[in-house]
Amino acid sequence: MKLEKIEKGFVLKHNGKVLINHTIDSPAFFIGKGIETIKTYRGNFDITDEIEERIPLYVSEINNNQISFSYEKESAILLVIRFCLKNDKDIVLEIENKQKYYNRFWIRVNSDSDEKVWGCGEQMSYFNLKGRKFPLWTSEPGVGRDKSTEITFLSDKYNKAGGDYYNTNYPQPTFLSSYHYALHIDTSAYCEFNFKNGDYHELEVWEIPNSIEIYSDDTFLDLVEKLSLRFGRQPKLPEWIYNGIILGLKGGEENSFSRLENAIQHNIPVSGLWCEDWAGIRETSFGKRLFWNWEWSKKRYPNLDKKIQELRNKNIRFLAYVSPYLCEDGDLFKIAKQKGLFALNNNEEVALVDFGEFYCGVLDFTKNDTRKWFKEEILKKNLLNLGISGWMADFGEYLPTEDIFLANGVDARLMHNAWPTLWASVNREAVQESGLEGDVIFFMRSGFTGSQQYCPLLWAGDQCVDFSRHDGLNTVICGALSSGLLGNAYHHSDIGGYTSLFGLRRTKEVFERWIDMAAFTPVMRTHEGNRPDENFQFDQDETTLKHMGRMVRIYKHLVPYLKTLVDEAFNKGYPVQRPLFLYFENDINTYDIQDQYLYGKDLLVAPVHKQGVSEWKVYLPAGTTWIDVWNNQQIQGGQYITVPAPIGKPPVFYRKGSYWTDLFKQIADIE
Amino acid sequence: MKLEKIEKGFVLKHNGKVLINHTIDSPAFFIGKGIETIKTYRGNFDITDEIEERIPLYVSEINNNQISFSYEKESAILLVIRFCLKNDKDIVLEIENKQKYYNRFWIRVNSDSDEKVWGCGEQMSYFNLKGRKFPLWTSEPGVGRDKSTEITFLSDKYNKAGGDYYNTNYPQPTFLSSYHYALHIDTSAYCEFNFKNGDYHELEVWEIPNSIEIYSDDTFLDLVEKLSLRFGRQPKLPEWIYNGIILGLKGGEENSFSRLENAIQHNIPVSGLWCEDWAGIRETSFGKRLFWNWEWSKKRYPNLDKKIQELRNKNIRFLAYVSPYLCEDGDLFKIAKQKGLFALNNNEEVALVDFGEFYCGVLDFTKNDTRKWFKEEILKKNLLNLGISGWMADFGEYLPTEDIFLANGVDARLMHNAWPTLWASVNREAVQESGLEGDVIFFMRSGFTGSQQYCPLLWAGDQCVDFSRHDGLNTVICGALSSGLLGNAYHHSDIGGYTSLFGLRRTKEVFERWIDMAAFTPVMRTHEGNRPDENFQFDQDETTLKHMGRMVRIYKHLVPYLKTLVDEAFNKGYPVQRPLFLYFENDINTYDIQDQYLYGKDLLVAPVHKQGVSEWKVYLPAGTTWIDVWNNQQIQGGQYITVPAPIGKPPVFYRKGSYWTDLFKQIADIE
Repeated sequence: MKLEKIEKGFVLKHNGKVLINHTIDSPAFFIGKGIETIKTYRGNFDITDEIEERIPLYVSEINNNQISFSYEKESAILLVIRFCLKNDKDIVLEIENKQKYYNRFWIRVNSDSDEKVWGCGEQMSYFNLKGRKFPLWTSEPGVGRDKSTEITFLSDKYNKAGGDYYNTNYPQPTFLSSYHYALHIDTSAYCEFNFKNGDYHELEVWEIPNSIEIYSDDTFLDLVEKLSLRFGRQPKLPEWIYNGIILGLKGGEENSFSRLENAIQHNIPVSGLWCEDWAGIRETSFGKRLFWNWEWSKKRYPNLDKKIQELRNKNIRFLAYVSPYLCEDGDLFKIAKQKGLFALNNNEEVALVDFGEFYCGVLDFTKNDTRKWFKEEILKKNLLNLGISGWMADFGEYLPTEDIFLANGVDARLMHNAWPTLWASVNREAVQESGLEGDVIFFMRSGFTGSQQYCPLLWAGDQCVDFSRHDGLNTVICGALSSGLLGNAYHHSDIGGYTSLFGLRRTKEVFERWIDMAAFTPVMRTHEGNRPDENFQFDQDETTLKHMGRMVRIYKHLVPYLKTLVDEAFNKGYPVQRPLFLYFENDINTYDIQDQYLYGKDLLVAPVHKQGVSEWKVYLPAGTTWIDVWNNQQIQGGQYITVPAPIGKPPVFYRKGSYWTDLFKQIADIE
Repeated sequence: MKLEKIEKGFVLKHNGKVLINHTIDSPAFFIGKGIETIKTYRGNFDITDEIEERIPLYVSEINNNQISFSYEKESAILLVIRFCLKNDKDIVLEIENKQKYYNRFWIRVNSDSDEKVWGCGEQMSYFNLKGRKFPLWTSEPGVGRDKSTEITFLSDKYNKAGGDYYNTNYPQPTFLSSYHYALHIDTSAYCEFNFKNGDYHELEVWEIPNSIEIYSDDTFLDLVEKLSLRFGRQPKLPEWIYNGIILGLKGGEENSFSRLENAIQHNIPVSGLWCEDWAGIRETSFGKRLFWNWEWSKKRYPNLDKKIQELRNKNIRFLAYVSPYLCEDGDLFKIAKQKGLFALNNNEEVALVDFGEFYCGVLDFTKNDTRKWFKEEILKKNLLNLGISGWMADFGEYLPTEDIFLANGVDARLMHNAWPTLWASVNREAVQESGLEGDVIFFMRSGFTGSQQYCPLLWAGDQCVDFSRHDGLNTVICGALSSGLLGNAYHHSDIGGYTSLFGLRRTKEVFERWIDMAAFTPVMRTHEGNRPDENFQFDQDETTLKHMGRMVRIYKHLVPYLKTLVDEAFNKGYPVQRPLFLYFENDINTYDIQDQYLYGKDLLVAPVHKQGVSEWKVYLPAGTTWIDVWNNQQIQGGQYITVPAPIGKPPVFYRKGSYWTDLFKQIADIE
């Protein structure tokens, strides 16, 4: 990294390549003022901006590493940036806003048409971001997420919930470039990262950010390692996870435990039973929802304490569910209200959020009392003391931006994106303070900068129960790859998808293809979906039970290999599911691939994500010979091949010469 | 109007009310630079803008009526505006751009929550524009025009043609305020008039405009009269129009003339036979389209010359169809190409436009040779000499903005909005030069500033064949009212609507309700729609033939009254169909009404525009007693009433004491 003065301005170079080029004729920095409108409806946000002012900072005065910017010569200094080199590879731009009036900031970073860009949190539609604009705001990801589909149209029409390609539970103002650098903006404000222009990326921030960090390294792997150190690394997975699959069942005690027993009878290796409905349920038009009062529902699970112990004796753990909200009609709401633990509205009453036919108070985690109460009274007392070994920590995305006041005094528009990280930290602290780190795990769909250091496991959110391009099985891969580059080593998904609306129903085929993929991810977990009774379930068909058992045994078979990936995640921050280009920098065919991944260095997985296919096209990276795990066939890399792809034999290949060759060879024989 | 210097700036006042308030703390003028993207698909435009720079012109220096603007004290002057009072009521702001670099201009005009705003050309969805933003760009208006409807979704998905509330064939950067002023921007660039903010209107122009005109007067009627003088007035309607209805038929000679004969046999008064397909047809997936080669198709109409004379002997005129394009596969294309009459593209070849499964050359009407050729060879020789008395002059909206070069050297982005006016002028000149003004009429859906002085009759474009809120019958009224305020006195529509797609079909009910309205408009004309065979037609049902005959007789019965409205249009520029508030300034209930109108001063018409209703709610303005034409009941104004509304008896009321009382009394007896 090098800052150089040039005629009429300056340049910041990296490996001889200009990253930032600022001259009076072509300024790279702009500030301005905007008036935004943010409309919220059940986690979906309609955000518009009226730009009142946008001032190019034409004139730059350089004084050592400090640059002062103004609009015209001899006019007021509007911004000062200090370019602080951390070492020869990394730099921090420390920004000082000289005019508090401004609330918009833009920076242009040089680009060209060959560049690829990845990251921006967990992106579900596009892995390579170049050519598109990405608003960064944690929200519901949308149902359908494709304006040309009927389900998106209907979701928009009836629920304002159709979403679009950029909507995600987990945005992050950080990207990696194929030019071996990564750029991060230190802000929790709304951002738009615009990669549409050929010549430059334009990054917009709805505040003047404190700093911009630029990292570089010689290889993508080194860069990923560096970012994982910057944003935080996860603890290793608990040992019990490796025992098999976590079954998601929410039919109450009798139903859930008898179905678990049935699965065991069918020789399915089970590591956990996850009952979302442990705290009770509520029927809504969307389907079965949970009763948001985070304590054991003795009505729905009369013998849960004993059952959990019985499970433990069988080496099976019990998992539950929490969110950072409490429903109005629950007992805990009354207590938290009385203790003043909720965020307040204009009328100094509890700020309520509409979750779809029920309303909840916002637990104000900027307040120490709230954090402490939630950790002690909910997570420790109600969950951990009951023997619960894990939970879904849901709903980090809903913090409203209007008519809400937080104890730390920060505008909710600036706290909205920070909320998932705050929520993750509360969960993590409870686990750590209980001395259960490494044995207890929670998983989240929401995320933001820094949630890496708190959240031990991502889950891909609520896919449709289908193969659709923007909300189906394949989006899970894109989510794993993009988030994995930013220090999120562990990713998994609801097997079979979640959302069933407007006539869309999960088929046996969708469920089985999803299992086939999940066997090659660090955690396997099913979900009944939002409308269990109308959708295909693992135990409604003997062949599926058999198929699932076999795929879980394949997962278990790979555990020795998986544990080395977990070690790598722990020591180097490499994600378990890796984009192909991490190991094939010279094969640019790999740069755009978002429906295949390397499961560790040695296994290439290409999940089938279309309906009714019997074969599948796979790209095998150049420079390596690949061996098909199902038939031992050797194939030279650097080409697209088409392989048979029946259910139960997802396209998976290992590197010739792998240390794990014997293990991989046995996959085909597992029954 | 008065310009006053105040501390830190200046104000422009009108009747003591501040229209423009410019201070260093709250500037009213901004300039900037944007980079737009305009994507065209068959007359639908996807337009986005990236604002690179938006500079508030904080500092103003006043020197008599000339104001110089800059960003900071003692910095460069960016803009100069001369405030030229024309009289005590009207002012022109002459604008001088001091920095050619800039291509965006914004002005803020004071507003408040009580203000109503009308105009902006022919608006189909909203008459009062306050609270919404209106991009002003001539285009297809869209099919459905409502993102929550299935037909809009499907039109967007398959044809990029769903449209939205602001899409219109006829935009105009001119609005009227309930504060008795009108503002017009002299530009043909893309504009956005934003009336969303409570405190100000923000008007955006994609160039630095030459001038802004502000007119005021004591009454709305006087203001409308003034605007009609500014933009031009139409000639009177030809006498033959009053003979009855114009039948739109396009089944070729035998079919069209025999159906005309059948209508006559059924005692329907007919003034004209309009055969769009006079030049031949073409089948496309959209439906029957025309063959865009503007000469008599002897194949489809073998005896047209004789037939036209025979019709004349029966006092019926023949009407045809033209557009400003010629299809590639027609004879005239070859001639015009050889003569160099088309606009060219980058490769110096004829710039072609996709009209939906066929391509056409763009006749370059900025070129005198083209204008002359089209007038002489097409309009005079092929139409007027054949005895044609009128035509639809269609398709002014499609001028592409990319890869097209016009003879006058002006960027097509600036000529796009000007095209409808240019197209209207060619038609008008042909009529005038032939000495046929007052006998020949043409009608257009496209329009822009100045088309008032050329186009003698608007038609409301292509509604869906239904009662839908944003693309059905009621939108025709909104179109008539908004365009009528800006000097377009004559408006009519396709009886029964036009667009039938995605399973939508015209019903008998829709057709008959539309006829009921059309009887109270200056011109009655049917249209078979885009898919004649699948939609209800006037002659497929004896009761409809009878009903239509009666409604046309009511239209004819009102001709003596209508002629006084035509005189008023000629002398004062009042539209024939008038918003209620023009005569009821003190009754603010009338300001938002967009589904009723005054047909001249004395008749109030409230067309039924919903399915399956038997009664209808009507607002009668205050201060007058109204008499129901169907039952002679007297009703005091200033209230909503509900009246019976069977087909054939549209809610119509006349003023008590009207000079035309006897005429109006007879309406109910017409059979």
